[in-house]
Amino acid sequence: MSELFWPGDWRAGALFGDRAFVAAMTRVEAGWLRVLRDAGLAPDADPDSLPEVDGDDVAAGAEAGGNPVIPLVRLLRERLPESTASWLHRGLTSQDVLDSALMLCLRDALDQVLADVRRQVAALAGLADRYRGAVQAGRTLTQHAVPTTFGLTAASWLAGVLDAAGDLVALRAAIPVQVGGAAGTLSAVTEMAGGSAAAGRLADALASELGLQPARPWHGNRRPITRAGDALVAALDAWGRIANDVLVGSRPEIAELAEPVPGGSSTMPHKQNPVLSVLIRRAALAAPFATAQLHAAAAAAVDERPDGAWHAEWTALRTLGRTGATAAAQTADLLAGLRVDTARMRSTAEAAGESLLTEARAMGTNPAAIDDYLGRADELVDDALARAAAFMEAAP
Amino acid sequence: MSELFWPGDWRAGALFGDRAFVAAMTRVEAGWLRVLRDAGLAPDADPDSLPEVDGDDVAAGAEAGGNPVIPLVRLLRERLPESTASWLHRGLTSQDVLDSALMLCLRDALDQVLADVRRQVAALAGLADRYRGAVQAGRTLTQHAVPTTFGLTAASWLAGVLDAAGDLVALRAAIPVQVGGAAGTLSAVTEMAGGSAAAGRLADALASELGLQPARPWHGNRRPITRAGDALVAALDAWGRIANDVLVGSRPEIAELAEPVPGGSSTMPHKQNPVLSVLIRRAALAAPFATAQLHAAAAAAVDERPDGAWHAEWTALRTLGRTGATAAAQTADLLAGLRVDTARMRSTAEAAGESLLTEARAMGTNPAAIDDYLGRADELVDDALARAAAFMEAAP
Amino acid sequence: MSELFWPGDWRAGALFGDRAFVAAMTRVEAGWLRVLRDAGLAPDADPDSLPEVDGDDVAAGAEAGGNPVIPLVRLLRERLPESTASWLHRGLTSQDVLDSALMLCLRDALDQVLADVRRQVAALAGLADRYRGAVQAGRTLTQHAVPTTFGLTAASWLAGVLDAAGDLVALRAAIPVQVGGAAGTLSAVTEMAGGSAAAGRLADALASELGLQPARPWHGNRRPITRAGDALVAALDAWGRIANDVLVGSRPEIAELAEPVPGGSSTMPHKQNPVLSVLIRRAALAAPFATAQLHAAAAAAVDERPDGAWHAEWTALRTLGRTGATAAAQTADLLAGLRVDTARMRSTAEAAGESLLTEARAMGTNPAAIDDYLGRADELVDDALARAAAFMEAAP
Amino acid sequence: MSELFWPGDWRAGALFGDRAFVAAMTRVEAGWLRVLRDAGLAPDADPDSLPEVDGDDVAAGAEAGGNPVIPLVRLLRERLPESTASWLHRGLTSQDVLDSALMLCLRDALDQVLADVRRQVAALAGLADRYRGAVQAGRTLTQHAVPTTFGLTAASWLAGVLDAAGDLVALRAAIPVQVGGAAGTLSAVTEMAGGSAAAGRLADALASELGLQPARPWHGNRRPITRAGDALVAALDAWGRIANDVLVGSRPEIAELAEPVPGGSSTMPHKQNPVLSVLIRRAALAAPFATAQLHAAAAAAVDERPDGAWHAEWTALRTLGRTGATAAAQTADLLAGLRVDTARMRSTAEAAGESLLTEARAMGTNPAAIDDYLGRADELVDDALARAAAFMEAAP
Repeated sequence: MSELFWPGDWRAGALFGDRAFVAAMTRVEAGWLRVLRDAGLAPDADPDSLPEVDGDDVAAGAEAGGNPVIPLVRLLRERLPESTASWLHRGLTSQDVLDSALMLCLRDALDQVLADVRRQVAALAGLADRYRGAVQAGRTLTQHAVPTTFGLTAASWLAGVLDAAGDLVALRAAIPVQVGGAAGTLSAVTEMAGGSAAAGRLADALASELGLQPARPWHGNRRPITRAGDALVAALDAWGRIANDVLVGSRPEIAELAEPVPGGSSTMPHKQNPVLSVLIRRAALAAPFATAQLHAAAAAAVDERPDGAWHAEWTALRTLGRTGATAAAQTADLLAGLRVDTARMRSTAEAAGESLLTEARAMGTNPAAIDDYLGRADELVDDALARAAAFMEAAP
Repeated sequence: MSELFWPGDWRAGALFGDRAFVAAMTRVEAGWLRVLRDAGLAPDADPDSLPEVDGDDVAAGAEAGGNPVIPLVRLLRERLPESTASWLHRGLTSQDVLDSALMLCLRDALDQVLADVRRQVAALAGLADRYRGAVQAGRTLTQHAVPTTFGLTAASWLAGVLDAAGDLVALRAAIPVQVGGAAGTLSAVTEMAGGSAAAGRLADALASELGLQPARPWHGNRRPITRAGDALVAALDAWGRIANDVLVGSRPEIAELAEPVPGGSSTMPHKQNPVLSVLIRRAALAAPFATAQLHAAAAAAVDERPDGAWHAEWTALRTLGRTGATAAAQTADLLAGLRVDTARMRSTAEAAGESLLTEARAMGTNPAAIDDYLGRADELVDDALARAAAFMEAAP
Repeated sequence: MSELFWPGDWRAGALFGDRAFVAAMTRVEAGWLRVLRDAGLAPDADPDSLPEVDGDDVAAGAEAGGNPVIPLVRLLRERLPESTASWLHRGLTSQDVLDSALMLCLRDALDQVLADVRRQVAALAGLADRYRGAVQAGRTLTQHAVPTTFGLTAASWLAGVLDAAGDLVALRAAIPVQVGGAAGTLSAVTEMAGGSAAAGRLADALASELGLQPARPWHGNRRPITRAGDALVAALDAWGRIANDVLVGSRPEIAELAEPVPGGSSTMPHKQNPVLSVLIRRAALAAPFATAQLHAAAAAAVDERPDGAWHAEWTALRTLGRTGATAAAQTADLLAGLRVDTARMRSTAEAAGESLLTEARAMGTNPAAIDDYLGRADELVDDALARAAAFMEAAP
Repeated sequence: MSELFWPGDWRAGALFGDRAFVAAMTRVEAGWLRVLRDAGLAPDADPDSLPEVDGDDVAAGAEAGGNPVIPLVRLLRERLPESTASWLHRGLTSQDVLDSALMLCLRDALDQVLADVRRQVAALAGLADRYRGAVQAGRTLTQHAVPTTFGLTAASWLAGVLDAAGDLVALRAAIPVQVGGAAGTLSAVTEMAGGSAAAGRLADALASELGLQPARPWHGNRRPITRAGDALVAALDAWGRIANDVLVGSRPEIAELAEPVPGGSSTMPHKQNPVLSVLIRRAALAAPFATAQLHAAAAAAVDERPDGAWHAEWTALRTLGRTGATAAAQTADLLAGLRVDTARMRSTAEAAGESLLTEARAMGTNPAAIDDYLGRADELVDDALARAAAFMEAAP
């Protein structure tokens, strides 16, 4: 990413950045040293002495072995006293460090995303409740259908966000550590620990050290990666749908909705571009491809570590993490400041009045007005609000 | 699909076929009639009188309205007495019927897939247990790494299948009905039922009638569709990985594995092609694209029913349902009859002996033989077997 | 496909159907027999005696060898006298027959697509010329920008179609035969022909016999397949853009455009759904995934025939062929009957008058009216018309 | 990208980097000033005075308007004397500058890619010629089929590269400028130029100034973008296939091929990982998704500038440009130093001797040895060499 090619990227801050990735890999190595020290295997190792290594220095060596862990370990070792250096990375394989570091980066991204999801839920609950009486023309296949309310529209957006939120929360709670050694047998760790049960305890201790979930080696089973992709793209789908509705509602001929701070143009002073929605929609258009890349990589796994499929995951996960965080924040801002023109909604719906009631007429019922043909709109708003309240209560 | 363009397609039988789809749509209409009759609204309607309509007749009218429900309803009405015809489809919209019917087709596909997953789990548990002592060269990035066992290889395949199975079981338990009416407000149903609470009860009754889960309208929130795609592609990822390993293991220079009944060639009598693996791998290569299509459609949702995105889901879900069922069965057959050459595994591993022990040597440990450097392989097999047993016990 | 899951599929007729595929494979086998007979190698073979084999019979045997050619050859041989049977398929491999048959199916699909592209070009040229004076609000990022004309809008659609048409015509002219034998060496053919130069002549003769282009074996180089995907998806992109514009223009609040015969609803008598545009848009949403599947397959090629990647191409190419043909026809119909409300266009543009002229004002120019700020619209229409005329003249 | 998430990324150097992108946008603005000055419209403007603007400064303002051109223009104007500032960007729209700048970045990427393609062609021609007598087991569906030569294998790789090269050369020759103004009418330019013919001349002059091809506005017709994607992914497909073959050939049980400088491991001193092939394969696995994103964006175009689809193109094109350049260089290096073990090839083929001749036996011919059953292998090598020579001669 970068702000130039992906406007709004600043919102993702340091997430999945080079610096964050080096820090996460270093953190895994330090965590492992701590585990070894605490188990009495490396009593003289000093896990807190690991220096900060410059990403560019790591990068310079990444191609030779095909991953950044190899140069990172070398650079760390060079800068550590022998008492620590000799235990660094001992028993691990590159994939242990890289996968666990990706999981740490993912966790940070999810925390930010979930904070913004909570902002979205709060804003949406406000919209759904406030506009439950705001009649609007329901639209299907671009055409006026039957009356609805903007409160129900917002409640439906909210339901979509809550569906996505459920998956994100579940994902957040189940991010696994990776510890398997060279080919997933933990052979070296077993040697070090003096037995396989002890080796298992070391692996679990690393999970605990890093705040990740204990896990059996998943070098060839990439569900932790694809599940992250699935949850993030599902969230982007939900936000994309909101953006699409705002974009339609912002068209000057419809003018029911407007962004809090519309964007300008390089040449046309009057332009009020729905920029946040444009950028959210962009992210939603792109996300299915990054997620599919993760699945294609998972499906191409072979041997105890695959010959390219593993490597194809890293940028795709980074893309989803950063664009997900960016779109989450943009959607929260969009919703928090969304401008709703209920008068325009009503005038359009009333102008379309008889059209919106043809279903009712065809069924032989005779609602006096479009306000009398809103069915369960109000209950559905209540239902979504109840879900939102439960989510907000459960959320940390 | 078809057997010609997708060899093995016969294994998916009637799943998501035209006939099954028409039957499912008809079943939704009949279920709704039953709900209306049982609620006393349509006392003279006869839900059991709905005729079987020919798919080709429905098809002939599908383009005009953009979906097959419109012609189906018309054809059914023509063939029913007025007492039933006048209540048919009353209060529903095309999307209610089509989405619910897709969910019924999905359920049938999942039932078949899960039956084959159980066969896979049984076969894999057998392989993992039986070959826990069969030493094999662990391979990473195509090269020999450290020793492993074929039991652990099978246990790792098993863990992948169990991960996927968990998602499939969860998906199976949460397939929702769709009842929202023209724009998701249930307005017409509310009129019919005489109130919104009663309308909600009718919607829930349809869920119960069809064996689906009650749900609020999800016309614009497509997570039930994308979740199906995510779970199916994840299963195909897991099977694809197994196929990849069998393909490598079947190469004549490696010759550790062989298919139960290798395929022949049109010109070379000696060929022993690993055909099942080839076809499973094919399905795994293709699946990420169908799933991504579902997400792209979900992200393009707009209004109360989208202008093309909804329509783009149907074939993608069918593809995943049929190719998933086909690959599930092929994988079960592959695993049930997999031929394992443990002597060849051992001779390759022993020939590579010192290479496989360089890690150990570098660490200063001195395993006497590759068999002594297997780490937690045995415990990891036990772990996977325990998961398998729990799954088999929980399975219906 | 099928009409139920892909409304409008009837427009693709027999293209890439099971029957057409069996016929194409049979045609390749017959063509090869003819080549062998004409070369004096198989003087008693009767290429015209090949029976029509039922697709279901072929299908029943397709899984065993992983492709339909093996059972087809067996079924044909069983039904032919020895003098012909013994020469059938001699020297070829399954991939020769299947790839060449796919190319024949592709050719038929392209011919139909190009016929509809010509209809599109004619309709678009008519629209561009007729409406060159119809002022319309230009829209960017959903907002009014500067004035344009509907003639230029149509000319821009036309330019997109002509770009796509160029690729389709080039593709149509370069569809290659596949003749390589078991591993691309033509060894068996060389034996039969008595030398490698003679073998090359036989391969070229098959191309000529089938009306395909001569080619070196491309078993592992899948550019002929991916190029077909690229050209078809590019055409679908162009049609999708037209559909998107019609969908926006058909919204009741905009109402500048309408479909020739809008679709109805299952419950709302008044609905005027832009069904063709919906279905075209659907196809354009889906096509990138089928094309990407072709590229993923090409990128996974390995050995002299890949272990699954080849097999993953067939349905993807069929999908593009059929959905391309369907969308081509739908777009041609849409354009031929498109209803244009120039009065509404003008009134919207005039109502937005000062907005549409802010650029001009900001630049210090003072067009008296929006009609005076149309820049090169007219010349751009002329330019597109000239391209269209050249295309129509060059077209067969 | 970055070296950490995409090892080898350094090979793409500055291509499509933030700095390069800002420079390209600035170059477009300067080019346009030059055009205006040379036409006598802005006699006092100084096109050579445009300062270098820092990417981070541009980035900070990119979200507000949804693209980086708006802040760039503002920053440039602030730093220029009025005589130049007042003409800067005059008549253009953001999309003109951004699209043209992307085309400049694409051109630079293609130049680098094509230079490496020439290295590949030279290396491949060398391999094909040198190893035309090196017998090798032909493999289909992972199994031994009939004999081939490594010369023909290399010739087939070469044919794939030449196919891709043809598209890249054609693409390189047809990279268009974008000049359309706010909504593709060139209205402002027409005002400035004093007429539409003069406006057209200015647009063409910008093409000439930038070394791009003259073009009608393509704001909504994204074929120039998708065509770049198609050509780059096709090249990556061809390189991916080579990598796949090298990966299989590098397996220790096959050991026919080895990389020039195999990569090491973080723990296993003996490992000889085929790292370049792994990284090339990774790029080929990923590329179809980026290309499909471009097509999805093209298909989502609407209005005179789309509401998100345009924005979704930028990172995808950058990804293809950078990963394409990286993989091109890696493939060139891989091929230039590829180690070929002809003795191992022969011994494997001879060991499989009778298997490799079953086709011949079945046909009743009796080659004395596998060397006598190579069909047209030699001629096919010659054919590829001739194509290579023609390409090298035509190349600049």
